Amino acid sequence: MARKSDAPSERTRSKRLNEYARYDRATLHAILDAAPYCHVGYVLDGAAVVTPTIHWREGDEVYWHGSSASRMLKKSAGNEVCLTVTLIDGLVLARSGFNHSVNYRSAMLFGKTEAVGDRAEKLRVLEVFMERILPGRWAALRPASEQELKATTILRMPIAEASAKVTEGMPKDEAEDYEWPVWAGVVPIVTEVRPPLADPRNLPGIEMPEYVKRYRLD
Amino acid sequence: MARKSDAPSERTRSKRLNEYARYDRATLHAILDAAPYCHVGYVLDGAAVVTPTIHWREGDEVYWHGSSASRMLKKSAGNEVCLTVTLIDGLVLARSGFNHSVNYRSAMLFGKTEAVGDRAEKLRVLEVFMERILPGRWAALRPASEQELKATTILRMPIAEASAKVTEGMPKDEAEDYEWPVWAGVVPIVTEVRPPLADPRNLPGIEMPEYVKRYRLD
Repeated sequence: MARKSDAPSERTRSKRLNEYARYDRATLHAILDAAPYCHVGYVLDGAAVVTPTIHWREGDEVYWHGSSASRMLKKSAGNEVCLTVTLIDGLVLARSGFNHSVNYRSAMLFGKTEAVGDRAEKLRVLEVFMERILPGRWAALRPASEQELKATTILRMPIAEASAKVTEGMPKDEAEDYEWPVWAGVVPIVTEVRPPLADPRNLPGIEMPEYVKRYRLD
Repeated sequence: MARKSDAPSERTRSKRLNEYARYDRATLHAILDAAPYCHVGYVLDGAAVVTPTIHWREGDEVYWHGSSASRMLKKSAGNEVCLTVTLIDGLVLARSGFNHSVNYRSAMLFGKTEAVGDRAEKLRVLEVFMERILPGRWAALRPASEQELKATTILRMPIAEASAKVTEGMPKDEAEDYEWPVWAGVVPIVTEVRPPLADPRNLPGIEMPEYVKRYRLD
């Protein structure tokens, strides 16, 4: 049974410099929601395997999905995994190499996954997933077939043991280094969408929906 | 001894739909170089732990570094890890939910790390790291102290067992779905830099260097 606690565990406690570990749910949820994808780590034959995938959150649970043939999904279903999301916000250029760093938001979750087995529940969570990203699209799509539902594995993981880290702001140099004559500052990094590209095979008269035009990464 | 081979292993072979597994070194190197950061997975007490960090490449070796107090660096030094980088290039909106996907470039590396122990070699690879990102900055910085070098752990991993995956282009729908009247296409996603922000504590007369103005993410 996963430990339900906001307190840091040995695994989630930060030991790195210039990191600000946070354990409140609001920060954790905001980072999970802002990150367009995550990396899931699981153990295969005694070694760690790290696979990127798209996740979504509903309340205090995180979901991801893919082909039922996916090794990652087969090997992590019912097992302990580590799910990490990271958003890079900038390079931090200090006056010494040592104090250079990166501004970022990251969340690390540990937990045991379970496959969503029920057909109706699968459809429901897939709709939640689509509607979070593109509200209004689900109803416009060609409905899922039984074969497609069977070919799709969805994993759910309660947010149990988790931590978030947020670093921001200007370099933190040694007091005496502020006299060193080198430019210091931050190079901001952003991840954004560009104007959508229509499939040349779209039917005549099909307009780009508002939910596509409005889509943004936070 | 890590296997030196471009052939796929059981761990790196792709089993997901719509993925294009590639094993050539040029593709692998290009993805590693374009990604501003990676996720390193290692095993701790039988469970996978996935930590984000900044990596760099020199020839057929990948490096990363951090505080010598870092749990990730202490636990992965001399051990097998999985290093994964992922660049998201776009959301692919198909005519069925099932065929929605993401255009991305990803590389997954497995290997055994070793700590860079020699003082001169540590300085050399840190200079390579800095000069890859900001050519000309290393010589302008306050030089590293002995204490800082000791407090910095650098890991090296030969690129042994590795694979890359690249997906691109428009949705691949079922033949009959092209008649379904819904907009399909791609929403491009880019990660970019914004104009650098000078530290308010910079000395008077210190101008932003050209290498900062020119910095771009590929």
